[in-house]
Amino acid sequence: MTLVLGVDIGGTDIKLGLVEGEGDIRGSGKIPTRPEEGPEAAAARVRLWLGESGDVQGKIAAAGVDCAGLVDGERGFLHVSPNLRGWENVPLRDIFERALGVPAIVENDANAAAYGEWAKGAGRGLKNFVCLTLGTGVGGGIVVNGALYRGSSGFAGEIGHAVICADGPLCACGNRGCLEALIGANAIVERAAGMLARAGESRSAWGASPTVEALSRAAASGDAIAAAAFRETGRWLGIALANVVHILAPEAIAIGGGVAGAGDLILEPARATVRDCRMDEAMASVRIVPAELGNRASFIGVSLLALGRLNGRR
Amino acid sequence: MTLVLGVDIGGTDIKLGLVEGEGDIRGSGKIPTRPEEGPEAAAARVRLWLGESGDVQGKIAAAGVDCAGLVDGERGFLHVSPNLRGWENVPLRDIFERALGVPAIVENDANAAAYGEWAKGAGRGLKNFVCLTLGTGVGGGIVVNGALYRGSSGFAGEIGHAVICADGPLCACGNRGCLEALIGANAIVERAAGMLARAGESRSAWGASPTVEALSRAAASGDAIAAAAFRETGRWLGIALANVVHILAPEAIAIGGGVAGAGDLILEPARATVRDCRMDEAMASVRIVPAELGNRASFIGVSLLALGRLNGRR
Repeated sequence: MTLVLGVDIGGTDIKLGLVEGEGDIRGSGKIPTRPEEGPEAAAARVRLWLGESGDVQGKIAAAGVDCAGLVDGERGFLHVSPNLRGWENVPLRDIFERALGVPAIVENDANAAAYGEWAKGAGRGLKNFVCLTLGTGVGGGIVVNGALYRGSSGFAGEIGHAVICADGPLCACGNRGCLEALIGANAIVERAAGMLARAGESRSAWGASPTVEALSRAAASGDAIAAAAFRETGRWLGIALANVVHILAPEAIAIGGGVAGAGDLILEPARATVRDCRMDEAMASVRIVPAELGNRASFIGVSLLALGRLNGRR
Repeated sequence: MTLVLGVDIGGTDIKLGLVEGEGDIRGSGKIPTRPEEGPEAAAARVRLWLGESGDVQGKIAAAGVDCAGLVDGERGFLHVSPNLRGWENVPLRDIFERALGVPAIVENDANAAAYGEWAKGAGRGLKNFVCLTLGTGVGGGIVVNGALYRGSSGFAGEIGHAVICADGPLCACGNRGCLEALIGANAIVERAAGMLARAGESRSAWGASPTVEALSRAAASGDAIAAAAFRETGRWLGIALANVVHILAPEAIAIGGGVAGAGDLILEPARATVRDCRMDEAMASVRIVPAELGNRASFIGVSLLALGRLNGRR
């Protein structure tokens, strides 16, 4: 039985999974990232975690490593990541191969999540599939003909940075009106706060800056302003999804990530926006569904990608 | 030697090409479309043209038929076309197979053009390639891993109807802020007229409603307002191209169609917008180039697609 280690590096935590060839999880865990200590220290801590996982030590055949940002899988480099300050032009693959003593691959986290959802989650059995990961950032991954699509530069799938409102709000990337600037967690919180202020109301329960989770709970318990903020967010998402359908015409688009926890508060207005889109023959066939693997999608996906590489597939 | 007939059906003319297996053109011609007479009459006129082409009669092995609109290549149907009023849910493949007595395929015209440019024009030898066709409408076609990408519905590649400015002008499709609504020929003409009016100037040379070609000549001879209209058009195009790079990361994007005759008047500001886009590692590797095959791109592409189908490739 081949075991692969999936290493999903976030800004706060590294999520770890020991994944079998068929995508089943043999073990999982979480350690702090501490990005300020650098990638070598993080890799050493992953090695330690693996050592403490006892009986599997020495048994992993490969490792898959993913994080947010521009990841050059071909050369094994992380160019730059929004969550990992100072990890710039880092040979992430080499660092993890040295620390773990097995072949490694590196991948963008949203690409990894899309591949995981395709292999084991919401995209199972589909030919063409897109997965969006909604959180502070908005990531995307594309599966074409049953393979992860990276494009010629390796940076394809950045649907979160496609512009849908050219004169819209400034995005963390420096451009205006990217999807991320309109539906990222910060945008949702600001939208709700703005709506609250315009309505001349206040909500002690929200605090100074509520989380998306708190807003989502509020909306679920009948808070009209929180609900309206999600509705508008969902409409923006729907515009982006209709664009994805126009360009890629996948069978399904899965929506994952922390913000997707708001569920139908966001998904229903998004679906309605897609339905209302003209050229309805093109729109009718796509399903917009919740992702199924939660925060395990990336480490499952990157493990299976590593396994595929090990077995000579790309 | 296998000859294939390429039939590119526009709103005014049908362009016809007799194409060899390698994509070389043995003969070509043009007949009126007269869409009001219906698709059967058009197919009969294509048959007549073929008959008049003398020595090739009876020698074509297949036909490829393309037009603008939602074309379902799998089932051989044209759902709806902006140029061909009344040709709705038409079994275009059957109609042409009956008229010509050979196997036929049907394809969207921008898909056909993209495939033609990939096989014989600006996309030769590339793995991932996108071609936009700018005219009254804005069409797109995508080549992934050396094959035309149609998506699961068959309607992929409609980059002209991806929204880049959600509160923008109304598009012919019924949505707002599609690329087509911002850079289609009518939008360019209206932009130039608006700029002229705001400047309090007039141009007898432009007439009441100048063509894009007239504006392009004016800009080339130093007309600052015409040049500014193309510059703004190019910036909108650049936003859409950056989106294409974010999502698809192709090696090159070719720009064809009548409006592309304006050349660097549009392409230079488009390239500058892409260059100025943040996440420059992603943007750096793409080339934005003029299409090379002019108005023969579609009939060449659809012929080669028909030949591929005949030979068992898709």
